[in-house]
This record gives sequence, structure tokens and C-alpha cells, in this order.
Amino acid sequence: MSVTKIAIMGVGKIARDQHIPAIAARDDFELAATVSGSGGVDGIENHDTLADLLDARPDISAIAMTMPPMPRFDAARRAIAAGRHVMLEKPPGATTSEVRQLIDMARAAGVTLHGTWHSRHADAVASVRQWLATRTITGGHILWKENVREWHPGQQWIWQPGGMGVFDTGINALSILTEILPVDLRVRTSVLSFPANRDAPIAADLVFAGPDGVTITADMDWRYADTARWEQTIKTEDGTVKLLEGGARWTLDGVKQKAEGPGEYPGVYARFAELLSRGESDVDDRPLRHVADAFLLAKHISVDPFHDDA
Amino acid sequence: MSVTKIAIMGVGKIARDQHIPAIAARDDFELAATVSGSGGVDGIENHDTLADLLDARPDISAIAMTMPPMPRFDAARRAIAAGRHVMLEKPPGATTSEVRQLIDMARAAGVTLHGTWHSRHADAVASVRQWLATRTITGGHILWKENVREWHPGQQWIWQPGGMGVFDTGINALSILTEILPVDLRVRTSVLSFPANRDAPIAADLVFAGPDGVTITADMDWRYADTARWEQTIKTEDGTVKLLEGGARWTLDGVKQKAEGPGEYPGVYARFAELLSRGESDVDDRPLRHVADAFLLAKHISVDPFHDDA
Repeated sequence: MSVTKIAIMGVGKIARDQHIPAIAARDDFELAATVSGSGGVDGIENHDTLADLLDARPDISAIAMTMPPMPRFDAARRAIAAGRHVMLEKPPGATTSEVRQLIDMARAAGVTLHGTWHSRHADAVASVRQWLATRTITGGHILWKENVREWHPGQQWIWQPGGMGVFDTGINALSILTEILPVDLRVRTSVLSFPANRDAPIAADLVFAGPDGVTITADMDWRYADTARWEQTIKTEDGTVKLLEGGARWTLDGVKQKAEGPGEYPGVYARFAELLSRGESDVDDRPLRHVADAFLLAKHISVDPFHDDA
Repeated sequence: MSVTKIAIMGVGKIARDQHIPAIAARDDFELAATVSGSGGVDGIENHDTLADLLDARPDISAIAMTMPPMPRFDAARRAIAAGRHVMLEKPPGATTSEVRQLIDMARAAGVTLHGTWHSRHADAVASVRQWLATRTITGGHILWKENVREWHPGQQWIWQPGGMGVFDTGINALSILTEILPVDLRVRTSVLSFPANRDAPIAADLVFAGPDGVTITADMDWRYADTARWEQTIKTEDGTVKLLEGGARWTLDGVKQKAEGPGEYPGVYARFAELLSRGESDVDDRPLRHVADAFLLAKHISVDPFHDDA
């Protein structure tokens, strides 16, 4: 078995909680370095800049980029130009054009580009996808509610232009929805609630249209003080599926079903290893395009200002 | 020469002023019918609904859809499903997902789908594209200013969610920009000015990034009382190009150049005829994706309410 030396760029909460343990659990990846301007991880070589890493470590063939989306394009572009394989945390770009350009660049450079959607690897998602594959969808509803103070304490970039607000988590729901449904959807109406003092929405009410008059609604809200609810209900002619806990569990007509997936980040790295071994890329831009479309069609509502320390 | 019987769906100003004369000027198209719920054109068979047309006239093989973008997807889907070739006024969809789905449907049905961008056929555009093809771009600026009261009198849909506001015309500038530049761009910052009583922007300030630090800015504004200005300046290492009057004229370092294009709608129909004869489709979604990206990244500014009769 060949071992891929990998670097993580952006050493924040998601890197520490998810990427580093997922890499450590695999024999085919070795975390060889980090790139962080504010210090790295104990015991791991750190470089202040990507340029330093690319110069110093030609043996590191893959880089996982976990920083926020706005600065990621330029780093990905440089890494691809330097012949490195690139894994992108979700979303794969700050804009739909960035994603398209990165796909073209990776193809031209002959490297693997993996636009990850971690929620797609949650334990129940593959089973639900398989069950729905042959069913006729009749409707559905997404409920994606959490307390932003609990899940994004002090994060400022999520509120800035391009930070996407509630879609930073809501896009996880859309990544699951596009994975499990056998039909394509399009946003038809979008109501976005912007705190009066912020440039990104704290809540979103969406209506998606599918074929044959099928409607799927989404209620995303960061102002939910109770235990987070990350749920999707998909109705079919053969019964109703519920995906619960962000895709970790599922029921069919209320009866609990088996969920035997790999788990989110173990699944992400298993998929990355598979892509590297095949010399392929995998970047699905549909979840991000749905978000861009939701902004494009949006009716804006101004709501109470949001203060982190309130 | 074979003659294609064509119908126009949506008999508004753009159909009367542009599509009907462009069809009349060609020997290879015959305007065989219209679809309009509010009456058609003197001397031309009209059907109240698309379903009526599709039933009554299987000999009409092509339909030009000129109504606003929001209702267009469903009509295009039905026409494609009925085996008709479809021409779409710009933009090719209300959302980026719609465009992608229509492309897939047309391919599956084996019909031609033409997502038109009329401004690309303005007289000077092809010459500028050719001149820029081998140049190194160093920067640029779009100035797209007009009086919305003069150019969109009483139009309500442009102000509704999805109506796109100033981008209804500004997307013409982006359709030219993406046509003439030999490099890809991406929106980096976007400031959109929304009238306090409207759901679409009346002005947009955009910054696009290209490769190697190239920046192209765009200043779009519907609050311009003077004679409309539809201008693009592209700087290169070999000189500065100016496209004027929406692409009808151009200068190189201030010196007027030849502009010998077909004109906008004659060019649209010449291209459609070419696509039909080749059995091909042509739908470039980049201008619409730039608009969606501009909304996605936008900083919103609330400005004075807009009243049509002010």
C-alpha cells in the first residue's frame, strides 16, 4: 500500500476535530505538515504560508484545504499549479465560477480535485439514497435548525458578504438532498432573513420544484435555542423516509432502519483515497448552485440585529 | 433551402421590436404562430397557451421564448418534451439550476436549445473578441448606465424576486465580457443597491478577478438620467479597447475601428439557423452564473424607494 503524504491548510476547529483524527485513523495517509499563519498542531511541521510548504515539501502530494471559502480559491489554484492533489472542505468555492475554474484547472494539470460534502458520508445517507433510487418522490421537507451561538461561537466570517450565513450549515442539508434524490430540483422561491447588522442571512425559507409538480420545502434557521434539529423528510408513493441527526439515522414510515455508513470524515478520506488511486476528480457543484440560486431569487427580510455576546 | 416554421411565445416589446423583424428578414424562418394570453400580432395565428400550440401545430418545429425568465423554464421543458427546438431570450433561466436542467433535457430529447445573448451579436463584438484573443489583459472597466424609466417603463417583474433588477440589462454587459475575453473571470466583491420598496437592485458595483491579479470592475446603474452609456474598456499590454453603444462600435487607443457584425437580432437568428442545420445546442451559462455569484457575495445597501411614476 502506498502512503500519501498530506498537508492540512487552515488549522481551525474542523481540522482539529475532524480532519486530523480521520487522517490518523488511516494507514494510507500521513499528515506530514500543516499550513497556518497562527501556529499549527503540536508535533506536526508547520509552514506559515502555502508558498513555503510548496517550496519545502515537494514530497507532499496532497493538500486538504479547510479554511473558509473566500480565501480558498487562490490557494487551491496555486496548489494545483504546483501539481498537488487538492481536497476542498465544503463548499468547493465561494462562487459557482470558482468551482468551474478549479475543475478546469485540475483537469488541465492532471491532478485530483475533491470537492467534499462531509454530510453525504453520514451513516444513513447511502442507504436512503439506495432506497429512494427506484421510488417516485411525491414531496419533502428539510428542517435544519440550530443555535448559531452554540455551533459557530464567535465566527465572524460567516456573517460577512460571501460567508453565506445559515447556508454555511444549510448547504450540508442540500448536499444530502442532491445525493439521495433520483430527480433534479431547482429553487423556485427563497425568503432570506438578514439581521439588520449583518451581511448574511440567519434564516432561509426555500421552496424547491422537482418534476411533475413535486415540491420540497426547506426551513433553515440559526435562531433555534433548543437541541439542534437536522432532519429531512422525503415522501414517496411507497412510504415516507426520515433522515435524522444530519443523516446519521433514518426511519421508514416511522420504523428505524439500519444505517451502516462510514461516518462523515472517515467517509471523506476513504473517498479521497479512492479518487487518488483512480486518478479521478469529484466535484459536484449542485449544492452551491442551489445556494447561489436562493440568493438570486431571494426576497430579503430584515430581522433583529444579531450580537455574538447577546 | 428548408424553411423552419417558428412560433414566438410571449408577444411583448422585445418580440415586436426585434424578433418579428429578424424572422421576417430571413428566408429560412417563417413566423407561423404566436403564443400569448393577451392577444398576438395582426395577421399571425395566435394560441392562448403553449399546450394549444403544441397540439394544433406539430409542423412548427421551433419556438422562440421571449417572456420574462421566471415562467420560461416550464414552457421550455414542455416544448422540449414535445420534440421542438427552443430558443431562449436572455437569460437562459431564472436560476443556474434551470439552465443546467434544460441543457440535459434538450440533449436527451435530441433537440436544439439555443440560449441567446443578443448583445454578443452587436456589430463590434466579434472584431474585439478576435483582437483580444492573442493579447494579455491587464485590466478593465464596465460602465452600464441607463434610465430605468426610459428603458423599462412600467415593467413590474424586473423588481420582483428573481427579476434581477439592474442585471436585466447588466447581464448584457457580462454576456459581451465573457465573449470577448480570452480568460475566465470570477466575482470577488459585489455591492448591490436595493430601493427600500423593491426586491431587486437598482445598481451594482462589482469587482471581477482574472488570472495574474487582473481586475475588471463593473458599474451598473439604472438611476442615470442622461443618455444611456453601455461601455466596456479593456486594457491590454498592446493597447486599450473601448466597446461603445452596447457593442455597436469600438476604438483601439482612441482610434475608431471597423465593426462589421450582423447586428444583434439578425445575428441571433443567423446563429439559431446554424445550430438547427448542425443539430447542435449552444447555451453558455457564464453570464447568469456571474449574476448569481454577485447576489451570493453581495453586500446589500438600502437606497431611496423607487416609484415608476416619480
